[in-house]
Amino acid sequence: MSMNNLGIVKRNIVRADEAAVAKLSRFGVASIHEAMGRVGLMKPYMRPIYTGANVCGTAVTVLVHPGDNWMLHVAAEQLRPGDVAVVACTTDNEDGMFGDLLATSFRARGGLGLVIDAGVRDVKDLTAMQFPVFSRAISAKGTVKATLGSVNVPVVCAGALVNPGDVVVADDNGVVVVPAAVARQAADAAEAREANEADKRAKLAAGVLGLDMYKMREALEKAGLKYVD
Amino acid sequence: MSMNNLGIVKRNIVRADEAAVAKLSRFGVASIHEAMGRVGLMKPYMRPIYTGANVCGTAVTVLVHPGDNWMLHVAAEQLRPGDVAVVACTTDNEDGMFGDLLATSFRARGGLGLVIDAGVRDVKDLTAMQFPVFSRAISAKGTVKATLGSVNVPVVCAGALVNPGDVVVADDNGVVVVPAAVARQAADAAEAREANEADKRAKLAAGVLGLDMYKMREALEKAGLKYVD
Amino acid sequence: MSMNNLGIVKRNIVRADEAAVAKLSRFGVASIHEAMGRVGLMKPYMRPIYTGANVCGTAVTVLVHPGDNWMLHVAAEQLRPGDVAVVACTTDNEDGMFGDLLATSFRARGGLGLVIDAGVRDVKDLTAMQFPVFSRAISAKGTVKATLGSVNVPVVCAGALVNPGDVVVADDNGVVVVPAAVARQAADAAEAREANEADKRAKLAAGVLGLDMYKMREALEKAGLKYVD
Amino acid sequence: MSMNNLGIVKRNIVRADEAAVAKLSRFGVASIHEAMGRVGLMKPYMRPIYTGANVCGTAVTVLVHPGDNWMLHVAAEQLRPGDVAVVACTTDNEDGMFGDLLATSFRARGGLGLVIDAGVRDVKDLTAMQFPVFSRAISAKGTVKATLGSVNVPVVCAGALVNPGDVVVADDNGVVVVPAAVARQAADAAEAREANEADKRAKLAAGVLGLDMYKMREALEKAGLKYVD
Amino acid sequence: MSMNNLGIVKRNIVRADEAAVAKLSRFGVASIHEAMGRVGLMKPYMRPIYTGANVCGTAVTVLVHPGDNWMLHVAAEQLRPGDVAVVACTTDNEDGMFGDLLATSFRARGGLGLVIDAGVRDVKDLTAMQFPVFSRAISAKGTVKATLGSVNVPVVCAGALVNPGDVVVADDNGVVVVPAAVARQAADAAEAREANEADKRAKLAAGVLGLDMYKMREALEKAGLKYVD
Amino acid sequence: MSMNNLGIVKRNIVRADEAAVAKLSRFGVASIHEAMGRVGLMKPYMRPIYTGANVCGTAVTVLVHPGDNWMLHVAAEQLRPGDVAVVACTTDNEDGMFGDLLATSFRARGGLGLVIDAGVRDVKDLTAMQFPVFSRAISAKGTVKATLGSVNVPVVCAGALVNPGDVVVADDNGVVVVPAAVARQAADAAEAREANEADKRAKLAAGVLGLDMYKMREALEKAGLKYVD
Repeated sequence: MSMNNLGIVKRNIVRADEAAVAKLSRFGVASIHEAMGRVGLMKPYMRPIYTGANVCGTAVTVLVHPGDNWMLHVAAEQLRPGDVAVVACTTDNEDGMFGDLLATSFRARGGLGLVIDAGVRDVKDLTAMQFPVFSRAISAKGTVKATLGSVNVPVVCAGALVNPGDVVVADDNGVVVVPAAVARQAADAAEAREANEADKRAKLAAGVLGLDMYKMREALEKAGLKYVD
Repeated sequence: MSMNNLGIVKRNIVRADEAAVAKLSRFGVASIHEAMGRVGLMKPYMRPIYTGANVCGTAVTVLVHPGDNWMLHVAAEQLRPGDVAVVACTTDNEDGMFGDLLATSFRARGGLGLVIDAGVRDVKDLTAMQFPVFSRAISAKGTVKATLGSVNVPVVCAGALVNPGDVVVADDNGVVVVPAAVARQAADAAEAREANEADKRAKLAAGVLGLDMYKMREALEKAGLKYVD
Repeated sequence: MSMNNLGIVKRNIVRADEAAVAKLSRFGVASIHEAMGRVGLMKPYMRPIYTGANVCGTAVTVLVHPGDNWMLHVAAEQLRPGDVAVVACTTDNEDGMFGDLLATSFRARGGLGLVIDAGVRDVKDLTAMQFPVFSRAISAKGTVKATLGSVNVPVVCAGALVNPGDVVVADDNGVVVVPAAVARQAADAAEAREANEADKRAKLAAGVLGLDMYKMREALEKAGLKYVD
Repeated sequence: MSMNNLGIVKRNIVRADEAAVAKLSRFGVASIHEAMGRVGLMKPYMRPIYTGANVCGTAVTVLVHPGDNWMLHVAAEQLRPGDVAVVACTTDNEDGMFGDLLATSFRARGGLGLVIDAGVRDVKDLTAMQFPVFSRAISAKGTVKATLGSVNVPVVCAGALVNPGDVVVADDNGVVVVPAAVARQAADAAEAREANEADKRAKLAAGVLGLDMYKMREALEKAGLKYVD
Repeated sequence: MSMNNLGIVKRNIVRADEAAVAKLSRFGVASIHEAMGRVGLMKPYMRPIYTGANVCGTAVTVLVHPGDNWMLHVAAEQLRPGDVAVVACTTDNEDGMFGDLLATSFRARGGLGLVIDAGVRDVKDLTAMQFPVFSRAISAKGTVKATLGSVNVPVVCAGALVNPGDVVVADDNGVVVVPAAVARQAADAAEAREANEADKRAKLAAGVLGLDMYKMREALEKAGLKYVD
Repeated sequence: MSMNNLGIVKRNIVRADEAAVAKLSRFGVASIHEAMGRVGLMKPYMRPIYTGANVCGTAVTVLVHPGDNWMLHVAAEQLRPGDVAVVACTTDNEDGMFGDLLATSFRARGGLGLVIDAGVRDVKDLTAMQFPVFSRAISAKGTVKATLGSVNVPVVCAGALVNPGDVVVADDNGVVVVPAAVARQAADAAEAREANEADKRAKLAAGVLGLDMYKMREALEKAGLKYVD
């Protein structure tokens, strides 16, 4: 067993079940995260680079070094239709590792979007392309191509563990990772969760209080809540 | 006298004078803040979740714990038409404590908006609802309902003291708190301040310098400013 | 030789060649930054206050103190058509030093925009005016006019050295500074760089990999990259 | 009623009861904070400038502007034996507003220490003097004396409301504010809390688990905790 | 397969080989990190709470919620001699989750130290006990015991994946995680790496340049380095 | 004229006058910074890695890339007795670029210390060596040697412009840069400034107020300060 995975490109990865991914794509990040028991979220500094950006696909993971985007070119070749590139960096870095040229290449390979714990550039062009990107920063800072990282090894991206082939879902609420093995289960749970949202919304809109709808009054009283005038 | 206000909901609060609130709603946050002598501002990390969000109303204050939005449900019942919920947290936290369901409930109770020193989610839905929210973060991170906080006690929100019933005004420039007792006075002062802005703008547009319009040259010279070639 | 430049306004500065500025204005910040050898960028916390803001002009530099915008009024008089005000502060500060009134004044003097390592306010109005501003923060916090800084001395703004008369280019990717003496050279290099971008984009869109287009495979192999299944 | 308190020095303030302050000085910040129901803490970025610094006294509050320490000189005159100066700033600022000269002056007036939501300098000298300071930063950055703030008005310092005369307790765990009116009550509660700490410590040292000592097992089981092998 | 690991305590974990742990304890974090190929490091915000703190042991992992330290009590029971508790939180949080009482309990169980991506308190007492703690913050903020997390599930702590039983090594340079399966291999590699450090140090102390000792001159020249006068 | 200085090592630089450096070494950073008119300070995140670290010498400047310390080896050869290495990075980076081996090499060349806008490691060893280092972070993160930067070009380090040969002074208060051309003048001004500090300290210790010693009362009254009871 090797101590580390640097300098490795894994070509054959097991992607999450296509139907499960399709089903997950119908639900929001918040619902999926709640349905999974409130796990799997990336940190909230990961934001879409344009309003309305969203994506759901299978992860091709990339591990890069600060200021070096060499592995993104290596990763392009590993993308298949339906994939989302997920880029982690060995240390905090905001350099602009990705722009409209790489987006063009990723899209040509079938890549659906990018989740990157570093910076990107060409926001205007990426918006025009409607190529969804979730990043920690926007920066014009150029990068070198000098040091090996890896492709399709397990990575920690923005605080979340991502294995190649996992499902990555991203929308206005953030980015959530669904392990491939539980993709179907998570989709079903998210479906169940969203099912009664419309009903709840109607009740709340009619003036019913969450205190009553969720039957919280007894628990609050037991906890010692006091109403005073 | 109790040492702390945890676990308390105060039902009857003295809200700022309605006419004063109405008058304040005509002015911007910067004008009101300047008119009050440059006090009462929340920290600039409090930003609107969509472009154009703005709100002016009386504060129903909420004190919550990190990762726990139980008190927001308790607060919903205390909202009256014209109120803005102002949420402080006992420690720095960015979890997504508020989304479109709570917004629906708040609006049904007459709530005009939310100012929260924590995270929110469902930005897309809240934007569609045009429900103004000012927060420190956007996050899908779900919260529990386990620990008591309080409603309508004095809180420190984003660095500003807010008493229940105070006026809270928020726009593209940030969030300012106007104590209920000086709401009318602040509105009058803001009115006076904005009154001659149009005149100033016209002069500046015509090429008059602030140096001359504000008669700064003498003070600058006295302070020792030197012009060199 | 004076130890410092505080309290000084330099009236006659050597601005970069007009034709070079005009040529630079045709290229993006990322291209210019790359063309110059990846130097001259301000830190990525400098962001446009509205989507689409961009500017290219000659720098009139301003050094201010925290919470004090007096020197911005002094700077207004030094602006000539084609200038961009570049404001550095003696310490980190996010106060709202600039709003629509000063923007009106700057524009009346021929000023094209503002780059400020501090806060600004009136984002809605500045957007309506389409007056491009790049800042570290948005804040309603008012400022005093009490302490001398300087105009047209060398400053460090957001990590970049700016001499008066240098070219400042800002767009969705950030802000780059081009020393006046190399403005023409940088414009030529940026032109050369952008020249073959269309060709590259077409190839990548057709599915050609960067690995092949940039001939990276040999270098990657030499560096030890291993493909595994 | 005035809208703001800028430019005011209140000379006569009601200080917390001397005996209560003396009693509070025997307990730690964590104990007092817990005893008060987990309120009153300043944010954890407030740290002692040397190991072992601690102080307990009555607050003389100071409101200053960024980069301006004029009011600290005004505050020196208001200090009485047993006071601690508590400095809030109208905006985030790390400038070095306080050093060994002001410490000498404060001590000569009976001042016991300083809590400042800004920067200080002369750490080596202050350590040699054993003058306890809790600050957000250490910085050599000099300040001006140009703009009025206030002394002995209510301030928000590092997220905590401080009224003049309140008790401020600071040690290796941070800074807590005890309102003057509940100082005795808080001291008693802290005493009760610390009373059985020795007993708890002995039990835990003997290998008794908190699970048993605090009788948590039932609650954990009810909450659904599962032990697996 | 369960979607998440919340509410679970795994009792039987496979700890890294004892001899490998013992060998690893002889080397520094930087050497081990380098020996492993520069992977496994926690983020540098994880710092020792006192100078000289260091620890090497097998991880008992804990997943907690913000502001809630209930699971630390559950974890105490799972500690065996030679273990280090590694605490991750579901969201960024700096509350003081651990103090001298829990340290006493951990030590009584054989626990060697604590690595926690949250806050701790009682630094003075922990220093007196010489109980090594590496944390992201120091804070007196008290926590509740209300929500289940887990013990001995895989966690991401300060950016590093930690599986129960992995070796955690911490010293003045930071915290590194060594997967149990490669602990021996990492120890051997670290040994090899440190073996010739003394020799290198002697050469450098004698004035030999790294340029020559590491034979860098040719590579630098090839890369285009130019010496000018 | 070249657009950038990447890939260049300047061998002959003009160092500040030796006597001026010697004189500056007698004064503190705060005094020198004040004496120069409050300019030249690096940002306060630059902190000594051990208590008591201080250094005064002539700058050999180094420009590096994130995660790459190759140029530090190149710089070692350019150090002469009395020099301090000043390292700037092209982007924010906290990797551990420097440790006890490089310190041994620098010291063998006559280097007195290091000021680095990045991370360092081996704090314990560097403390034992009493090799003064001022950095933005401590990190075990290893670096590569792959990309050219430069030595002895002008750099912006932690917000301050540093030209090779300038005097760099660092102590518990931070780091200040004195341009070579004004080193003597700054030393004289600092001397004058410190001359009457002892006198001031004695007066303040005797209870004289700064209000009187600095004759501030009239200015405060003119500014509108009001004393109330």
